[in-house]
Amino acid sequence: MTKRVKEILSWYGSDNAGTLNNLARLLNHGRLGGTGKLVILPVDQGYEHGPARSFAANPPAYDPHYLYQLAIDAGLSGYAAPLGLLEQGADSYAGQVPTILKLNSANSLSAATPDQAITASVKDALRLGCVGVGFTIYPGSDACYAMMEELRDIIREAKAHGLVAVVWSYPRGGKVSKEGETALDIVAYAAHMAALMGANVIKVKPPTDRIDLEAAKPVYESADIDRSTLAARVRHVMQCAFAGKRLVVFSGGEAKDTQGLLDEIRQIRDGGGSGSIIGRNSFRRPKPEALALLDEVIKIYLHEA
Amino acid sequence: MTKRVKEILSWYGSDNAGTLNNLARLLNHGRLGGTGKLVILPVDQGYEHGPARSFAANPPAYDPHYLYQLAIDAGLSGYAAPLGLLEQGADSYAGQVPTILKLNSANSLSAATPDQAITASVKDALRLGCVGVGFTIYPGSDACYAMMEELRDIIREAKAHGLVAVVWSYPRGGKVSKEGETALDIVAYAAHMAALMGANVIKVKPPTDRIDLEAAKPVYESADIDRSTLAARVRHVMQCAFAGKRLVVFSGGEAKDTQGLLDEIRQIRDGGGSGSIIGRNSFRRPKPEALALLDEVIKIYLHEA
Amino acid sequence: MTKRVKEILSWYGSDNAGTLNNLARLLNHGRLGGTGKLVILPVDQGYEHGPARSFAANPPAYDPHYLYQLAIDAGLSGYAAPLGLLEQGADSYAGQVPTILKLNSANSLSAATPDQAITASVKDALRLGCVGVGFTIYPGSDACYAMMEELRDIIREAKAHGLVAVVWSYPRGGKVSKEGETALDIVAYAAHMAALMGANVIKVKPPTDRIDLEAAKPVYESADIDRSTLAARVRHVMQCAFAGKRLVVFSGGEAKDTQGLLDEIRQIRDGGGSGSIIGRNSFRRPKPEALALLDEVIKIYLHEA
Amino acid sequence: MTKRVKEILSWYGSDNAGTLNNLARLLNHGRLGGTGKLVILPVDQGYEHGPARSFAANPPAYDPHYLYQLAIDAGLSGYAAPLGLLEQGADSYAGQVPTILKLNSANSLSAATPDQAITASVKDALRLGCVGVGFTIYPGSDACYAMMEELRDIIREAKAHGLVAVVWSYPRGGKVSKEGETALDIVAYAAHMAALMGANVIKVKPPTDRIDLEAAKPVYESADIDRSTLAARVRHVMQCAFAGKRLVVFSGGEAKDTQGLLDEIRQIRDGGGSGSIIGRNSFRRPKPEALALLDEVIKIYLHEA
Amino acid sequence: MTKRVKEILSWYGSDNAGTLNNLARLLNHGRLGGTGKLVILPVDQGYEHGPARSFAANPPAYDPHYLYQLAIDAGLSGYAAPLGLLEQGADSYAGQVPTILKLNSANSLSAATPDQAITASVKDALRLGCVGVGFTIYPGSDACYAMMEELRDIIREAKAHGLVAVVWSYPRGGKVSKEGETALDIVAYAAHMAALMGANVIKVKPPTDRIDLEAAKPVYESADIDRSTLAARVRHVMQCAFAGKRLVVFSGGEAKDTQGLLDEIRQIRDGGGSGSIIGRNSFRRPKPEALALLDEVIKIYLHEA
Repeated sequence: MTKRVKEILSWYGSDNAGTLNNLARLLNHGRLGGTGKLVILPVDQGYEHGPARSFAANPPAYDPHYLYQLAIDAGLSGYAAPLGLLEQGADSYAGQVPTILKLNSANSLSAATPDQAITASVKDALRLGCVGVGFTIYPGSDACYAMMEELRDIIREAKAHGLVAVVWSYPRGGKVSKEGETALDIVAYAAHMAALMGANVIKVKPPTDRIDLEAAKPVYESADIDRSTLAARVRHVMQCAFAGKRLVVFSGGEAKDTQGLLDEIRQIRDGGGSGSIIGRNSFRRPKPEALALLDEVIKIYLHEA
Repeated sequence: MTKRVKEILSWYGSDNAGTLNNLARLLNHGRLGGTGKLVILPVDQGYEHGPARSFAANPPAYDPHYLYQLAIDAGLSGYAAPLGLLEQGADSYAGQVPTILKLNSANSLSAATPDQAITASVKDALRLGCVGVGFTIYPGSDACYAMMEELRDIIREAKAHGLVAVVWSYPRGGKVSKEGETALDIVAYAAHMAALMGANVIKVKPPTDRIDLEAAKPVYESADIDRSTLAARVRHVMQCAFAGKRLVVFSGGEAKDTQGLLDEIRQIRDGGGSGSIIGRNSFRRPKPEALALLDEVIKIYLHEA
Repeated sequence: MTKRVKEILSWYGSDNAGTLNNLARLLNHGRLGGTGKLVILPVDQGYEHGPARSFAANPPAYDPHYLYQLAIDAGLSGYAAPLGLLEQGADSYAGQVPTILKLNSANSLSAATPDQAITASVKDALRLGCVGVGFTIYPGSDACYAMMEELRDIIREAKAHGLVAVVWSYPRGGKVSKEGETALDIVAYAAHMAALMGANVIKVKPPTDRIDLEAAKPVYESADIDRSTLAARVRHVMQCAFAGKRLVVFSGGEAKDTQGLLDEIRQIRDGGGSGSIIGRNSFRRPKPEALALLDEVIKIYLHEA
Repeated sequence: MTKRVKEILSWYGSDNAGTLNNLARLLNHGRLGGTGKLVILPVDQGYEHGPARSFAANPPAYDPHYLYQLAIDAGLSGYAAPLGLLEQGADSYAGQVPTILKLNSANSLSAATPDQAITASVKDALRLGCVGVGFTIYPGSDACYAMMEELRDIIREAKAHGLVAVVWSYPRGGKVSKEGETALDIVAYAAHMAALMGANVIKVKPPTDRIDLEAAKPVYESADIDRSTLAARVRHVMQCAFAGKRLVVFSGGEAKDTQGLLDEIRQIRDGGGSGSIIGRNSFRRPKPEALALLDEVIKIYLHEA
Repeated sequence: MTKRVKEILSWYGSDNAGTLNNLARLLNHGRLGGTGKLVILPVDQGYEHGPARSFAANPPAYDPHYLYQLAIDAGLSGYAAPLGLLEQGADSYAGQVPTILKLNSANSLSAATPDQAITASVKDALRLGCVGVGFTIYPGSDACYAMMEELRDIIREAKAHGLVAVVWSYPRGGKVSKEGETALDIVAYAAHMAALMGANVIKVKPPTDRIDLEAAKPVYESADIDRSTLAARVRHVMQCAFAGKRLVVFSGGEAKDTQGLLDEIRQIRDGGGSGSIIGRNSFRRPKPEALALLDEVIKIYLHEA
């Protein structure tokens, strides 16, 4: 057990040994094992945007086994997906990569209030040997109080059973503008709320330099909070996650060119971010390209690139 | 146990022996037993459109015993129906045909948001000796998240009791246009979501060559997905169901002439579909005609026609 | 036990002995005992329209004991009423007449979506020694899916405790026009849905010759379904109730003159209806007149009038 | 035990000995003990209209102990109040006056659909040594079916634990006009519905001579129901409560002058009402005046005034 | 145990020894221990307004440990915060300061009906060694009846486990105007409702001299209720909290200058208020200034300033 992992575990003094054990499994797995950094493969794109938009660019990825194998071959920290995807392979790949069961999902066909369906349970995660569960909240949405109450129950049940709680905190709707969804004040607020609710690992989007809430603007001006670079903005987000004492990972966002993506990863690292969660940018490329990209990402977090 | 059935069972490695056993019962029954293909008789028309529109064209079908006998005489894989229909005959026909209890139903009198009432339970299915339960979701509907959460509970309970979960995945409402309900991207998406939720058997409609979601069009173009024939479209849908590792059966759709229907079945077979679920097109014809038609259908799946 | 009652019980092969026993008690009680026909006194008028509109025309009926005594003196098959009415007399009249606890009720003061409040439970019915429970659904209403789910739970619980399930199936709202509430297609559909949900006894209104749903009209024409007389229409409704293998009783409808009512009863009998449920037309008349009327009704079902 | 109390208990033949025992405690307490008449002090004004509007006119009443002492000193039958008020004194005044825990309350700040919050439970009533629980329904309100279902659960639980169920039946909203809330047909209907739901004691407002529902007007005319005096109207309401076989008490209504109030009480007595429930008219007067008034009221029911 | 604390405990005669014990722990802790006065540090600002608006002015406060240490170093009575904040330190600071787990929280991103998400449970409070739980209600909001019912369940469960119930009673929405949220009649009403629901400690805002409800104005005039000074208004609020027999603490309100704040505290003391709950005005200042301010506040309650 490295000193860094021990330090991280010390932040979670109210969690039981079971949760700490699974958190350690996640932090000690793969090529980043022991560094305190995480790179996770998430595959909820199929539910959110449909299978063709997710996999047609790289058809082998239609097969759930491909996705397990990709996470393993790339030496990632873990693999997160909805029930069906994990079930198709949980037996074959048992013990080869830490898995996180994504418990809720939205879909692109719905035109209703931003919300998600809870499609699996903490008991499913236990049955499938996962280290943790994932859950999305949409702060701002008219459904946000209900989603937070669902999350409360899931965190309570997950931790009681020794699992890690990973929260996708994605403001949407309400007083948040469309561009504001990635504004610095909004992303920092999102990370803070997830921490207040008891998340072990928090997933947010890389913040832009926009400040979205009128009421927040004077504060960002008067306190002279640096938002000139992504690194500075990531540093602010980490500070808002209990002065850096919560694990916060950043999504890769929209598919983009390789250099753009790697630049972003470098800044997340420089800002003290805990790592990355990279979906579309990996499974939609042919496997050799995906492995090459993930190798670069891992090297950045290892300070080798 | 044929090699094909063994292979199919191997796709469901996260399911317990009870569910695999009932899935095997379904796959091994009737004239298609052992082939990995299914032809199922569904009778939820009476609930959905009323009794006269369902049975007046062939009055003996008003009697629930007629429907059991039809499925048995035609050598079908199974018979799916709501509670009352199965109860009227479950004793007389015990052990003669695998049954699937359809747990929810819509009706034509309601003008509310597309939704269904859950009118029976997993425990009813056990009590009646069914091999599985059936459940409809309407992805897109404002009720879709609630329906998916109902389905989650039913899949969990059904599988815990060793039953097979059959999902009718019928997009409707929300961002889905009326014609889009059978568009290729929508049907493929519907099959994928059902697979992600843990369905053992998925029922969708035969897809047209339409692409309904604007965001999906460039993907279907750039990946050059073949949608020129129904066989090609069925192939795409099967790929979207975990690279063909889920059972997907296709409905017969609107009542049509015999040749049109048989042509459709041939293409479903050629596209690798797992079989058909044929209601209106069978029970609304006089019994000799219905048996002749179903004989043709079965021969197609046996590659004898 | 008559041959006819044995035959009726044979239709309910999925029900337990407790439910069959209580169904037999209902079928064997009163002057119609053993004939397979039922005449039941329902008193939910007070809840639905208020006490004065129900009882002012015959003030002794304000007293709950009067209502028990009327059902007994007339030799009826049973008495159905809400909780308070049955509680006021359940001890005094124990064992003298089969009772059905009506579990839900609407009221005339509400202007909300057609719905009812569930005001008593299956356990109350057991405590009061009832043979069964009664429940109203409004297919078509925006509340219809919720009401059907309530009914599902009540049927399950009632039958598990050996009680008979009686369903008042009254389409209202949604795509059903005001006149359509008694249209032949709508009443037949209502009876069919109640049968599909597991009702032992179904209560509908006498159908008119109207066809309400556009989609149903061509079917009624092409199949040449006879709707020229009430007897023919009742025959169609019985066919839609599992080819006559469910008990369907018909309400008396609006208070009308004696001859009109008796003519209607004769046609219900001739169409093969299982009997009548007569409220307003009995308890709002002075007792001698009410007894005379009910005597005529019973004679019709006995083929003595 | 007086003959009259025995007679009253005989009306509740479906209730258990525990409930009968607590009903007897209420009927046998205070200066009206044994007469079958009740005068109860209710204090839910603070919740409904705020503390100043309730107590500023007589500041000692801000203290919960004052209210207990008032009910005791006046020799009343019982005292009804929400949780906090009963808790502040339940220990000091244990055994000195029968108490009724008011389980739900509205407030004047809400502009939503007429409804109430359930702020205490049957278990609280047991813990505080109450003889019964009180609950308000608003027949007519869009929330009325939900409120009735809450009441059903509370009556069931209260009676199972041997408590008395007291129902405040106050039509409001829906098809009821503002003036109609005290119309004769509406008040009679309200009392009838509470009786149908299983109330032991019913609280309504003194009815005016108005008939509010169009459909009820011809019935009141044709049956020639006397509504010329409050006594006659009370007599009609009692008849609608199971031919007088339910206890119905009348509120004092708006604060008014002493003679007006006493006249009203005399007519309630003459119409056969079971008593009065007097809040604002007592606790808002200086204590000597309040005691003098309540003395007059009790004398009226004792036929001494 | 001081005489004053014993007297305060005597007001809660219906609570069990566990709750009294924890209430005593709160009243006996810190520099005000034994005086019957409370000064509590609340930190729910981060959830309600976001982290930067809460902590950017004093960045060490981003660290949850800073907040515990501030409450300890200042000798406060207790520290109240949401789940995540208490968890980050509950182990390190065990036994050093009484803690209150704030169970529900709103956020500034939501545009929906005023409401809060319940983000933690009574069981969490027990697990973290808290003396009590905190809960906000918004009387007036369309969600107020639901929030009150949530509070009822929480008070019941908290007290059953020996915890203290602290209620933030903040009218908002419905018939309450924006300025009316701090009007004297509204604040007094808010305190009264919290007392009626069973709160042990009530938190309200310092009232202005406004009267908001039309119906309350004549009462405040005719009863000549003094509202000329904050002290007089606090006295009225205390009277409305069961004649001063409930603990009522007042928030510091908007951040303001030190003298303005201390003047306010003096008037709360002079009006008989039970103490203060001071968040923004303390944790947003540099620590030496915060300690100096809290020292002044405590001295005021000790009658030393």
